[in-house]
Amino acid sequence: MPKISEKGKAMPSSPIRKLVPFAEAAKKRGVKVYHLNIGQPDIPTPQIALDAVRNCTDKVIEYSHSAGNESYRKGLAKYYKSIGVEIDHTQMLITTGGSEAITIALMTCLDPGDEVIIPEPFYANYNGFATQAGIVVKPITSSISNDFALPAISEFEKLITPKTKGIVICNPNNPTGYLYTKSELEQLAMLIKKYDLYLFSDEVYREFCYDGNEHFSAMNLPGLDQNVILMDSVSKRYSMCGVRIGALITRNKEVIDAAMKFAQARLCPPSYGQIAAEAALETPADYFVGVYNEYIARRNFMVEALNKMEGVYCPRPKGAFYTVVKLPIDDSDKFSQWLLDDFQYNGHTVMLAPATGFYATCGLGKNEVRIAYVLKIEDLKGAMECLDVALKQYPGRTI
Amino acid sequence: MPKISEKGKAMPSSPIRKLVPFAEAAKKRGVKVYHLNIGQPDIPTPQIALDAVRNCTDKVIEYSHSAGNESYRKGLAKYYKSIGVEIDHTQMLITTGGSEAITIALMTCLDPGDEVIIPEPFYANYNGFATQAGIVVKPITSSISNDFALPAISEFEKLITPKTKGIVICNPNNPTGYLYTKSELEQLAMLIKKYDLYLFSDEVYREFCYDGNEHFSAMNLPGLDQNVILMDSVSKRYSMCGVRIGALITRNKEVIDAAMKFAQARLCPPSYGQIAAEAALETPADYFVGVYNEYIARRNFMVEALNKMEGVYCPRPKGAFYTVVKLPIDDSDKFSQWLLDDFQYNGHTVMLAPATGFYATCGLGKNEVRIAYVLKIEDLKGAMECLDVALKQYPGRTI
Ligand SMILES: Cc1ncc(COP(=O)(O)O)c(C=O)c1O
Ligand SMILES: Cc1ncc(COP(=O)(O)O)c(C=O)c1O
Repeated sequence: MPKISEKGKAMPSSPIRKLVPFAEAAKKRGVKVYHLNIGQPDIPTPQIALDAVRNCTDKVIEYSHSAGNESYRKGLAKYYKSIGVEIDHTQMLITTGGSEAITIALMTCLDPGDEVIIPEPFYANYNGFATQAGIVVKPITSSISNDFALPAISEFEKLITPKTKGIVICNPNNPTGYLYTKSELEQLAMLIKKYDLYLFSDEVYREFCYDGNEHFSAMNLPGLDQNVILMDSVSKRYSMCGVRIGALITRNKEVIDAAMKFAQARLCPPSYGQIAAEAALETPADYFVGVYNEYIARRNFMVEALNKMEGVYCPRPKGAFYTVVKLPIDDSDKFSQWLLDDFQYNGHTVMLAPATGFYATCGLGKNEVRIAYVLKIEDLKGAMECLDVALKQYPGRTI
Repeated sequence: MPKISEKGKAMPSSPIRKLVPFAEAAKKRGVKVYHLNIGQPDIPTPQIALDAVRNCTDKVIEYSHSAGNESYRKGLAKYYKSIGVEIDHTQMLITTGGSEAITIALMTCLDPGDEVIIPEPFYANYNGFATQAGIVVKPITSSISNDFALPAISEFEKLITPKTKGIVICNPNNPTGYLYTKSELEQLAMLIKKYDLYLFSDEVYREFCYDGNEHFSAMNLPGLDQNVILMDSVSKRYSMCGVRIGALITRNKEVIDAAMKFAQARLCPPSYGQIAAEAALETPADYFVGVYNEYIARRNFMVEALNKMEGVYCPRPKGAFYTVVKLPIDDSDKFSQWLLDDFQYNGHTVMLAPATGFYATCGLGKNEVRIAYVLKIEDLKGAMECLDVALKQYPGRTI
């Protein structure tokens, strides 16, 4: 039997993969599981996007341009203009989800053995994309003690080697919900300039900023036109994760040209997804107001409920729809499994994402979990009740 | 300005990319271009697939399972059963086009520096996928003198090194239209077994076999359950290239498990595409009869027209919808450009794919072009007339 590749062996599993069989077993026992573990919003997709697909009269579903339909790219350029980012349709590639934007960006800019610095905890799939490209992730730890603010620039500087090619940020952040301030980004920009690095900016949660805080796009950092690569997606913006449409955006022509060669090899992004995404550009403003109000209410409820629990600390996330919470537990993997395997409260339990999966540094995240507040308030309420009771009963409770 | 990666530099451009600006210029001058250069069929997508998408009532377009919807995978397993291939839904991953099946298969089985042997001329994007994965393609030349039959096994054997991990075949073949016989595949199977290699079998043109010839799937080669990886796609089968749905199929559990980790990192294949592909499984048989008749007629017309031209040789392809033709010309790249740039006949010209782009061995394919017979007979007729006149006028004619 031929051997699989070392890369295949090294590919990380999803951090919650080990928990899935326990969740399934719990459901089989009749226990209702509140899913706080995934970033799949329950918000309806804009009707205008659904209708566009339902009304599609194409008779042949053809390959599109490898960079995506020009009409969509032009529409997207207008969207960026409307949020203050000046780019045109030749400075972007439409990708198969933000996921593909990330893989193409990394492969275009980094060779095997090259390094990227990423503040941890970070979106776990960055590990997978890095492994796939053979590149090395150097984590820089951000801390719940200051709500996961950007680590000091001097700390970044310590990690820079001749192999360092870039820094990846996710803003607003998954998993922490942290929204970088303009000033934090400006400090980062100085470092990027000093070492002539790439700044890979994952802004797929851009629309989710709370409490009057504004999102500042890395594309608007002055003097970094050749350095910044924006990785974007319609998955969360329009709650249409399944259409698989994202974008890779940069003013660096050499990067776009090389990225285009990766895009051509895989032919094109999905046609129906592009139809939905183009139509979604006309989503009425009140859709976003509704989404905003819903998430703010959920966040406020959840943060308050969590911070009321003894020994629990939850920052007040300013963006995205996640939070990383400190719990009085010995081991978040064990706790998450115990919740599914040994616990129930009135026939309910909770599925969490252990924060260990979001840290690259071994041993970190053992007393933290990520919570995605993608459930209706009513369900969040049930979930928080469960968690409160569970923390009191959990044998591995530390304080 | 930071440097792009060596990989980004090494990524090959599409073989016809250089011709695109000339085609656009010709169109601007009012010249009508017959596109014989691309594999985008003009056949309508089955109505049942279009309808399924038009009737989709989902309110949230969610991520699917990373391996693809279970209902689709189960349906697909039935399709394979119906064509005599016994596999179940746990032995497949639904991918974003056949393209992604190929990239995931290569990354799962080969590490950077490892080698695959591929009979040339071959589908040009294999080069891109290989470059992306850092693997080395060892071409083995097949020849128009025997209509591009499988090269002798002894020739394959000469190319095997300790780094050789597999052989890629495309059956029926793009670009040659060659359909491997059962006996050719059995010879290949012995070699695969002898050296314990992977056999990557790209069968995306399976439905396109002519003259009563039957397709023999590599999945049915006895004793190779752990070696064969099937890469498939709905793009051509149902003329729905834009839905971006393919599949990676193998009975090797270690491979499927590792491939699944790549699939999880990119989250899922497109939802709408899966809806279309699942519905397409119920495409009525007369659809395929119609498609078959259309392609047979096109092929017969084209082969005859080509072979009537002086100094031209076109094999009679038994599969797919391509042929590689020998022309009495000095340089297929120059000729293809000349057709667009300097030539017209009654306001028409032809766009061809120079065969040089399908050979990895430098210098081969200079007197060959690939023709995709994806046009209606009427247009094919116009195209053949143009080509006939052009060959007489072309200054680089050799005989
Ligand atoms: C931070 C971040 N980046 C990128 C993605 C990729 O999303 P998609 O491929 O659906 O666009 C996700 C999805 O959860 C994410 O959380
Ligand atoms: C031989 C071969 N394999 C794979 C593909 C990939 O097709 P897709 O990604 O649309 O499934 C093509 C497309 O032309 C092809 O010709």
